[in-house]
Amino acid sequence: MKIVTKKAKFTNPLYLQSGRILEPYEIAYETYGELNEKKDNVVVVCHALSGSHHAAGRYEGDRKPGWWDSLIGDGKAIDTKKYFVICTNTIGSCFGSTGPMSPMYPDNRPYRFKFPVVTIKDMVKAQKILFSKLGIDRVKAVVGGSMGGMQALRFAVDFPGFADKIISLAATHATRPWVIAFNEIAKEAIIKDPDFKGGEYDPKELKEKGLTGLAIGRMAGHISFLSHYSMDRKFGRDYVPNEGLYELFGRFQVERYLEYNGYNFSKWFDPLSYLYITKAINLFDLSNGYESLKEALERVKSKLYLIGFEKDLLFLPQEMKEIDEAMKSISKEELSEYYEVKSDYGHDAFLVEVDKFAGYINDVLEDRR
Amino acid sequence: MKIVTKKAKFTNPLYLQSGRILEPYEIAYETYGELNEKKDNVVVVCHALSGSHHAAGRYEGDRKPGWWDSLIGDGKAIDTKKYFVICTNTIGSCFGSTGPMSPMYPDNRPYRFKFPVVTIKDMVKAQKILFSKLGIDRVKAVVGGSMGGMQALRFAVDFPGFADKIISLAATHATRPWVIAFNEIAKEAIIKDPDFKGGEYDPKELKEKGLTGLAIGRMAGHISFLSHYSMDRKFGRDYVPNEGLYELFGRFQVERYLEYNGYNFSKWFDPLSYLYITKAINLFDLSNGYESLKEALERVKSKLYLIGFEKDLLFLPQEMKEIDEAMKSISKEELSEYYEVKSDYGHDAFLVEVDKFAGYINDVLEDRR
Repeated sequence: MKIVTKKAKFTNPLYLQSGRILEPYEIAYETYGELNEKKDNVVVVCHALSGSHHAAGRYEGDRKPGWWDSLIGDGKAIDTKKYFVICTNTIGSCFGSTGPMSPMYPDNRPYRFKFPVVTIKDMVKAQKILFSKLGIDRVKAVVGGSMGGMQALRFAVDFPGFADKIISLAATHATRPWVIAFNEIAKEAIIKDPDFKGGEYDPKELKEKGLTGLAIGRMAGHISFLSHYSMDRKFGRDYVPNEGLYELFGRFQVERYLEYNGYNFSKWFDPLSYLYITKAINLFDLSNGYESLKEALERVKSKLYLIGFEKDLLFLPQEMKEIDEAMKSISKEELSEYYEVKSDYGHDAFLVEVDKFAGYINDVLEDRR
Repeated sequence: MKIVTKKAKFTNPLYLQSGRILEPYEIAYETYGELNEKKDNVVVVCHALSGSHHAAGRYEGDRKPGWWDSLIGDGKAIDTKKYFVICTNTIGSCFGSTGPMSPMYPDNRPYRFKFPVVTIKDMVKAQKILFSKLGIDRVKAVVGGSMGGMQALRFAVDFPGFADKIISLAATHATRPWVIAFNEIAKEAIIKDPDFKGGEYDPKELKEKGLTGLAIGRMAGHISFLSHYSMDRKFGRDYVPNEGLYELFGRFQVERYLEYNGYNFSKWFDPLSYLYITKAINLFDLSNGYESLKEALERVKSKLYLIGFEKDLLFLPQEMKEIDEAMKSISKEELSEYYEVKSDYGHDAFLVEVDKFAGYINDVLEDRR
């Protein structure tokens, strides 16, 4: 599989939903496979909150491959022998696209809190501009899970006919207060952490030390991605050996796991990006700018493949089903299909149980559904 | 209804599960109604994590009555015209019973981290000692929800025959990693808060200013007590008026609510008590000291009334049902009954939807079940 990582620079302003602009801006992206001559073998993949454009393959020396490597590759469900797969880092993120720690014109100091709020709509708009620059005006499919699934849905409504197929996994049509509440824990923990310095932290320092507030926020996030069942299976009531059961700070394995992953995360993810991206997730409502979800869906010309995960507690499968029901209620059933993945792994299943839906996605791409 | 608030002092050591002792110790308690001559009209009520011995009635000048006022009172489901109701503040808590901020013998400075870890078993043991002192050797019922429900179950196993009936609501037989994970957010947020000062904080100062770490922990707790449905109903996607939609710190109503309640809570609850009580909850396992849950339940002589709440995400109704199933599997079906309350309010339902189970509890107390 051919992997290319690039960065595109744009000097025209990006007009944001807020009325503000980003100018200039950059988009980091990665491609897998080869674009054919007709430029009609493109599959767009969209990442989630903590993801990046590195969706598949392995960088030299890296222990882990891209976040959807089990789905994307030669001979895999999204077959890179056949498709040219593009994944871009969303604006607002911290892996190369313009975000809050990017240099701000004209003095090149980081934006920090001067960065404008970006929305899922803005993220999708920026991607569309990149694709146009690459000469891609129509794609086979847009695929994404969680925040990536929101982007896929946004493509369907904002750019009707751009994609033949929209495959949205473990997402929603409008973020519910349950999710906003989890993000609130992170927001509060980050902004009240003295080491965050009101946004004036030194990013190099945080890369070494991490940031407690972001670690705590990520721990809360972790809970929301898992389920009672996956936690039982993974940790049960196991206690860390050599830590006293009756010592106040003796830990159950689940505590150690959350701490380890939370603090580790806070060393490689930028806290300001975390604030901005969770804000984008909170603001997501497909019906924004329309009278209703149905009116928004009236615009859809792609076929929607809506994949819910049985035990997902962050975005309930019901929320994906509601989109399918809304499509049916406006007589667009031929453009909508709901598929529920049986899994005990909660929201995380879209990343960790790929084998349970890879066949379905392959069927969709190969026109067998 | 006659309300009496008292404090009992004990100079004999309380031997704890950890092998450590508390000596001396005090138990704050409140009683409602009158003890009859035979001392056989007692109902014990046990409180949850943030509760106190003030379960019912209203103190002069207080805006809110006790936490289960809708259940306990003259002519109410737990009828104080008939029963003498006792509720004690658990040891480890911060409302009058001995806890981490109590004076430590011999120099009377607060224990702080020198306070021993206490368990639900210890809390129940201390209560039993108080009841003996009051000349009460047998009670009509022990009733409690959440951590109070754990105490009720512990009474059933540790003091067989002490209560005729055990009514346990919204609890579990063994705390699952899901719950421990939520408590971990609080632990981490509290101990890493510089204002916590490694446990050496000035309690008066926190009463005025609150403590961010505890506020954040409580916010996480709040999420776990609610449900997707109750949050939708209460907040939906409503936004705080006058806060900009595209301002990074503009807030959805659910965010404002969590902040308000979290910070408010941190002014009236002690952070060390929060750490110790959540530790007790984490450690709770009814089968502790036995080969299995069944072996523990073999000891039970009271009738267990196990009340689960349909949409409880903290302690799944299934967990209460498992106790009933275990009782059946050891042929003690006549001593066990499972009742599921239909409610969309999540764990909180045991406090906020009392009308949905008050009739059931009254039936149990009046021997109609």
